[in-house]
Amino acid sequence: MDIATVLEQERRHVEEELERHLPDEGEYPERIHEAIRYSVLNGGKRLRPIITFAAARAFGHDRAKVVKSACSVEYVHCCSLVLDDLPSMDDAMMRRGKPTTHKIFGVATGILSADALLMHAFKLVADNGVDVGADGPSVAKAIRDLATAVGSYGMVGGQHVDLEIGVRGNVDTETLEYIQTRKTGALFVVAATLGGTLLGVAPEELEGLRQYAGDLGLAYQIVDDILDAEGDAGEIGKDVGKDVGKATSVTVHGIEAAREKAARLISQAREALGVLDGDTTALDDIALYCLNRSH
Amino acid sequence: MDIATVLEQERRHVEEELERHLPDEGEYPERIHEAIRYSVLNGGKRLRPIITFAAARAFGHDRAKVVKSACSVEYVHCCSLVLDDLPSMDDAMMRRGKPTTHKIFGVATGILSADALLMHAFKLVADNGVDVGADGPSVAKAIRDLATAVGSYGMVGGQHVDLEIGVRGNVDTETLEYIQTRKTGALFVVAATLGGTLLGVAPEELEGLRQYAGDLGLAYQIVDDILDAEGDAGEIGKDVGKDVGKATSVTVHGIEAAREKAARLISQAREALGVLDGDTTALDDIALYCLNRSH
Repeated sequence: MDIATVLEQERRHVEEELERHLPDEGEYPERIHEAIRYSVLNGGKRLRPIITFAAARAFGHDRAKVVKSACSVEYVHCCSLVLDDLPSMDDAMMRRGKPTTHKIFGVATGILSADALLMHAFKLVADNGVDVGADGPSVAKAIRDLATAVGSYGMVGGQHVDLEIGVRGNVDTETLEYIQTRKTGALFVVAATLGGTLLGVAPEELEGLRQYAGDLGLAYQIVDDILDAEGDAGEIGKDVGKDVGKATSVTVHGIEAAREKAARLISQAREALGVLDGDTTALDDIALYCLNRSH
Repeated sequence: MDIATVLEQERRHVEEELERHLPDEGEYPERIHEAIRYSVLNGGKRLRPIITFAAARAFGHDRAKVVKSACSVEYVHCCSLVLDDLPSMDDAMMRRGKPTTHKIFGVATGILSADALLMHAFKLVADNGVDVGADGPSVAKAIRDLATAVGSYGMVGGQHVDLEIGVRGNVDTETLEYIQTRKTGALFVVAATLGGTLLGVAPEELEGLRQYAGDLGLAYQIVDDILDAEGDAGEIGKDVGKDVGKATSVTVHGIEAAREKAARLISQAREALGVLDGDTTALDDIALYCLNRSH
């Protein structure tokens, strides 16, 4: 099977798990739970949980042992998309071909449901820790890593600086990389390491995964910028050119240098897998897919 | 010393700890950390962390062992106030005599800094667990309890239903109690139990604390409604009558029945302390203060 087919199978599996681990739509207050399900079940690529499962394979652990962590990183990602789309932030009307959450449910319910989803993610990580018999320091580290990836030194910090430069209109290479490592890279790293942290995987293996996922996340974002600059609107499913006037890898580096940088990062990411003893085929495939994807 | 003096001493101590455990204002991205500090260091009553310290005393543990949990519940409370004040929610201009966070920092930074503060709170609980040598299930339970208190079955749920009835304009007793137990009671319960959960306190003692804090939180909210209906604007420090047209304990029950309900809840709360072996004087004092306070 080619990589795209394998990833599509994985995506379907993840989709089922995401649905299974959400609160039921009928639970009170219904509107919040409807909004949560609307924000999550919208046909994303599900790359982050796919990375979590691939990492478990590299650690030699069964995927069932990391399923709650896998869902939790995707829930956090969905939460961040709802917040990014708010009128006070990117003011987006559409997301993956559907109206954004706040367009359907209103701004207040959008914000509240995003935070509820974030809380649900933390519960699942805690539960995952109990399920696999993790000790106190391991559960604490998993929670700390997730909170750091989301907070002011992670996604929140990245989104804030991104909004600030949107106002200022120009950006240097360092600031752009800051934004990309925080907005995308931070959660990729958690996706790759959360399960292993709970399962007591050796620090040097986790460090290898951290490097892999950091480079992968940055490359993923650069490829996103390239696709957005030159892609076909139908294929990538959002308005091409939405980043016009916004600093991206393409506006800062030019398209050829951006391509080279992405290729270099992916090569680095694949090398970092060398410290892992287990089967890293899936992680390797994901890295190749991220570089060569057309949507 | 009278209760008010003791609580004022406690408040000052908490104030120092809250300041100490926040990220530094100068850390990048500065504006997010300024907003966080602005939202937290605004002279609140600090009742929730005071409850955490009083509970530690009842468990026979040193206050140093719960200080991070104490700070974390106050940070969560401050986060919820920033979100409640947003234009899409209560649209409040002033909070404790100062412009609300989004008025100073803008709506986007308000939301982002509130979520960053929430993440900081989770980190502190995880750290507290490591500091006291808590095992995996205890750390997981503490995280789960905090996430539940904040999420769709806790504060988020309460705020959502509160906003919904604001639109509808009428409310039954059950819905009002739902809102009050979720918006106020849930975090009071976590304030009282979080430290004990990490310290491995016996389940029946934690259950006593849970009942105490649940009743206390509800009574606190009812007294708030009474003070708001009849209080003196100068003394309570916010616009009296801001709840005009909003369903409160006073509009639903009438002021006399509201007073009786608060007194009954406080009496119940104090009785629940009977299962605790340690020194419950401070918890008892807090209960009396909550009933008799004039601001």
